[in-house]
Amino acid sequence: MLRPPENQVAGHRAVEGQLGPFVDGAGLFYKPLQGDDRGAHEVAFYSSFSSDPRVPPHVRAFFPGFHGTQILPASDGSGPHPHLVLDDLAAGLRCPSVLDLKIGARTWCPSAPVDYFHKCLKKDSDSTSVALGFRVSGVRIHHGGDAGFWQPDRDVIRRFTAKDVRRTLRLFVSSNPASDSDPPDCVFASTVYGGSNGVLAQLLELKAWFEDQTVFHFYSASVLVMYETEEVEAGRAGGGVRVKLVDFAHVMEGNGVIDHNFLGGLCSLIKFISEILTDPDECLAEPKKKPLSFENGS
Amino acid sequence: MLRPPENQVAGHRAVEGQLGPFVDGAGLFYKPLQGDDRGAHEVAFYSSFSSDPRVPPHVRAFFPGFHGTQILPASDGSGPHPHLVLDDLAAGLRCPSVLDLKIGARTWCPSAPVDYFHKCLKKDSDSTSVALGFRVSGVRIHHGGDAGFWQPDRDVIRRFTAKDVRRTLRLFVSSNPASDSDPPDCVFASTVYGGSNGVLAQLLELKAWFEDQTVFHFYSASVLVMYETEEVEAGRAGGGVRVKLVDFAHVMEGNGVIDHNFLGGLCSLIKFISEILTDPDECLAEPKKKPLSFENGS
Repeated sequence: MLRPPENQVAGHRAVEGQLGPFVDGAGLFYKPLQGDDRGAHEVAFYSSFSSDPRVPPHVRAFFPGFHGTQILPASDGSGPHPHLVLDDLAAGLRCPSVLDLKIGARTWCPSAPVDYFHKCLKKDSDSTSVALGFRVSGVRIHHGGDAGFWQPDRDVIRRFTAKDVRRTLRLFVSSNPASDSDPPDCVFASTVYGGSNGVLAQLLELKAWFEDQTVFHFYSASVLVMYETEEVEAGRAGGGVRVKLVDFAHVMEGNGVIDHNFLGGLCSLIKFISEILTDPDECLAEPKKKPLSFENGS
Repeated sequence: MLRPPENQVAGHRAVEGQLGPFVDGAGLFYKPLQGDDRGAHEVAFYSSFSSDPRVPPHVRAFFPGFHGTQILPASDGSGPHPHLVLDDLAAGLRCPSVLDLKIGARTWCPSAPVDYFHKCLKKDSDSTSVALGFRVSGVRIHHGGDAGFWQPDRDVIRRFTAKDVRRTLRLFVSSNPASDSDPPDCVFASTVYGGSNGVLAQLLELKAWFEDQTVFHFYSASVLVMYETEEVEAGRAGGGVRVKLVDFAHVMEGNGVIDHNFLGGLCSLIKFISEILTDPDECLAEPKKKPLSFENGS
């Protein structure tokens, strides 16, 4: 019954003898606990979060439902292994386009051990995290009908520049495949990003919570955006758009301070999405003018 | 005619043979250009900014007016030295209480040279910048009448913890001096922080601009908050509250991306100020509960 999820675009995959998650096809997602303390940490987060009265219901809806842990045979054949049991966020979607965005200029928390901190800092600087406040961790864009999908390799995504991210956010709501000569048409922007339950509206709801909540700091967590490609192509309102938060192996207590790192990145993403809605034909033109160059180091 | 400013709480001071700024008592502030490229950088920023049509007038009002540069004898006796000529932001205030807050979890820009980057990263981590998204750079709090003022030394401020910052933001609007046994009374909170032109309202106006503007990134800039102590003590509406932005030696072009680093820190500061307004009697109690400890590194 258990099988690797079809729609996974980031993280470890349960293929080729690797340790990865399963879905059961009946609405559950089984995520193997990571071997170091990240696994225990993520379980502790879900347990704490799922019973925390300070989280309002409309915010809780952004998080996968948590159904405890379960020992299952590991996908890498290493024997019994504890798995988090979560809602399968892609359940019911037949042909979803998926975008995984890791939020925050900084993926390390202040208490991180030195090596981990250096590893993260390098990844944050080499990717767009430092510059944009977020980075693309994975993407799959269906082109409709039998045209297949675009899902760049992890190594390609790792090298994404700010321009690539901008382009990906446009391609995600375009009917035409990626090409240098043919700019993304953004014809699905208003269905997916716009509207009262579209991506922008949902991100703004999240933002309002992050401006206020001082309970959790979400390092290295992702915003996962999905929509049902066929629904969107058929122009059906809503388009099956889902916006969720995932990956909580590095959540820390907020201790009375807002998560300014996550919030800043979220606001940056919101600005990109807003611009696509305001100006869907902009065709990735570079910023129009640079009035004066006053950049010369520090 | 030129003299060191009475109300300076951060930065280099023109005393004891050091290079520092002057005021002329007629509304102008003369800031010596820093010797490395920071001086040139700050001049370039002011020149660019003061003529940039993309900056709306209500935002421009947060910045000191710029009146070019002028060669003046340096305060350290080293001879003629170029100075920025700016509005004296404390002009007209007789006995101001002043708070200088350096905004942003990160004071280094992505293109900073390696040594500078390491120096900043250490300062950001050792101070509250990383944890809170801002740090106190300087403070002077008058206690009214002849009671003098509290202005901790730079070395004391450098060691400020999150708790010290929280306390300083409360002391800044309190009538009683700092002491461990006597919690800040926050009696001036509604006059200084509240109201339609109070600190919170002005910070929210700045925030709205930072959510949208992609022109400038303000690394290592400060929000300067001042009020006329006597006015506030007399309960006069407004209380001469001023909120300004200063220190632009590290401003970079935004290149179409919002300044998520500054914005995140600003939102964090806004949350602290809001809490004081909502709960002026909270008396620096520690956060009430920690539901579950799930912090164990990463």
